[in-house]
Amino acid sequence: MSTSVLQQDAPATSLPTLLGPVERELAQFEAMLAAELRSEHAFVDELVRYGCLIGGKRLRPALLLLCARAVGQVHDEHLTLATVVEMIHTATLIHDDVLDEASMRRHLATVNSRWDNESSVLLGDFLFTHAFHLASLLETTFACRRIGRATNRVCEGELRQKGSRGDFRLSETEYLSIIEAKTAELTACSCELGAYYAGGDEACVARCAAYGRDLGIAFQIADDILDLLGEESQTGKSLGTDLAKQKPTLPLIRLMTLLDERQREQLTQLLENGSQLRRELLLPLLERYSAIRYAADQARHYADQARRRLDGLPLNPAVDSLRRLTHFVVSRSA
Amino acid sequence: MSTSVLQQDAPATSLPTLLGPVERELAQFEAMLAAELRSEHAFVDELVRYGCLIGGKRLRPALLLLCARAVGQVHDEHLTLATVVEMIHTATLIHDDVLDEASMRRHLATVNSRWDNESSVLLGDFLFTHAFHLASLLETTFACRRIGRATNRVCEGELRQKGSRGDFRLSETEYLSIIEAKTAELTACSCELGAYYAGGDEACVARCAAYGRDLGIAFQIADDILDLLGEESQTGKSLGTDLAKQKPTLPLIRLMTLLDERQREQLTQLLENGSQLRRELLLPLLERYSAIRYAADQARHYADQARRRLDGLPLNPAVDSLRRLTHFVVSRSA
Repeated sequence: MSTSVLQQDAPATSLPTLLGPVERELAQFEAMLAAELRSEHAFVDELVRYGCLIGGKRLRPALLLLCARAVGQVHDEHLTLATVVEMIHTATLIHDDVLDEASMRRHLATVNSRWDNESSVLLGDFLFTHAFHLASLLETTFACRRIGRATNRVCEGELRQKGSRGDFRLSETEYLSIIEAKTAELTACSCELGAYYAGGDEACVARCAAYGRDLGIAFQIADDILDLLGEESQTGKSLGTDLAKQKPTLPLIRLMTLLDERQREQLTQLLENGSQLRRELLLPLLERYSAIRYAADQARHYADQARRRLDGLPLNPAVDSLRRLTHFVVSRSA
Repeated sequence: MSTSVLQQDAPATSLPTLLGPVERELAQFEAMLAAELRSEHAFVDELVRYGCLIGGKRLRPALLLLCARAVGQVHDEHLTLATVVEMIHTATLIHDDVLDEASMRRHLATVNSRWDNESSVLLGDFLFTHAFHLASLLETTFACRRIGRATNRVCEGELRQKGSRGDFRLSETEYLSIIEAKTAELTACSCELGAYYAGGDEACVARCAAYGRDLGIAFQIADDILDLLGEESQTGKSLGTDLAKQKPTLPLIRLMTLLDERQREQLTQLLENGSQLRRELLLPLLERYSAIRYAADQARHYADQARRRLDGLPLNPAVDSLRRLTHFVVSRSA
């Protein structure tokens, strides 16, 4: 079995080719991010520049800018907010890598492995607070409110996930609610801010937010599958950390519901013992019960739903990119 | 030698007796903090309530409310902002305890020792983001800007301190600049917001901010002395962590400047070896060179300066409390 289970409905497209309509704005955002993340103090400067490199796929800034373009024009506020959401996302990644004891991200050493956990904690805090300060420089409190609430829900989602470790009988509903908070809240917020600051009407802004939410859920389910099936050489990040940290993800939750009580107990024992073979022992079982296929179907379900949210928007290249992104997030191998 | 080196200019007064003029408002703030720090999710709820207990001495909310009362009336915004600054301070304490591997704070187990580092990282993030969201609910962006900038400077100060570990030849100027960022920025911000939202004029607001800055520097130097000389049973928190983490604090920096090169090298070796006896071996040397006395003099110098900042303010019980607080911060034993 390979990650091809994720690749049924569309050929994988690389992310950059989808972002054509906002290519110039993304370059402006990168310049702004680099300019913001400097410090006159050598150690701080070195760390924050590295943090900026190790950041995500720039998915959230891209969503924000595409939603702006889908609905109207890209303004200065959009560049500021793209920088804000990327800083917040990077802060959560850097803190996640401490929690997951991950050593690799985007083919680079994580901050915790190159420096130490302390540097990671402080760098994450620096990025969070820098992002909030930047958002506060806009004219009204709208962005601060939306970003403050979203970010707090992200943290609550992370805490709920931490509290659910080892609980492989977690319901699918609770799992979805957790990933909605920890992942989809920030993608929804990015899309909403993009549409709002482009002057979109209320229905339009709500549509973009709902798109971002469904897309975020699809993205996270796909991410959980990649953690089980992916190749580190391809994803460029530490994998298997969900199992190591006993996070109940959708394939495992599904598998649990299909087993009888005795099997459930045996599986729980397997998951609880620290064996390096866990992943290898688990895969045939997940295959036999089509548990990964089920999770991939759920990811596609949310991606389809995201696509339908776009139906009321104008026909233009940015909306087309948003549509194609729904295929990308569930067919990616990295 | 004992902490009495800090107790020359005034008898130690307990903090609560100084806060009479804002006693009622502090109770309202406590109620608001408790109401904000709840969650419908059991694990999150348990953690955030504990975090609220383990928080600081409520010095920052008290400064904010006293500066409001010094200049005018306490309004709803003040209670919100008192809650915000205390949440931010608590977030930094909880992350600090991870960095310092501290096990005790306010006579309670730290979050990292009662739960684990992961819970501490996430709880700190939750408190930061909750605070920013709360600040954004005010009418204008003023508080968000001030708090965003201050908090980012706090984090930068923490990073600079981390970068200076083991560098016992750090200059006194650089040391002061670091503690100004990591500690005094938030006390200055608390005082400034208190005066601003009470309708104080520009000079008044600037005076309160300057008071808070000097007081914060005095407070931090006294804190560094307590880490060397204090009794854990009295302070209720883990001590000696500065030495364990090789933080250059003022007594050590002073001592270094008074030694000859050969002695400096020997001292560096002593500081670098992980001996449990470090504190005991160090104290006679600090005594011989009056290095702790020098640091205590510096703390008193900043406390005096803070007191003089109040000279232009009206004569009222709140200003009197602010004045007496300048004695408290340098004569406390906990």
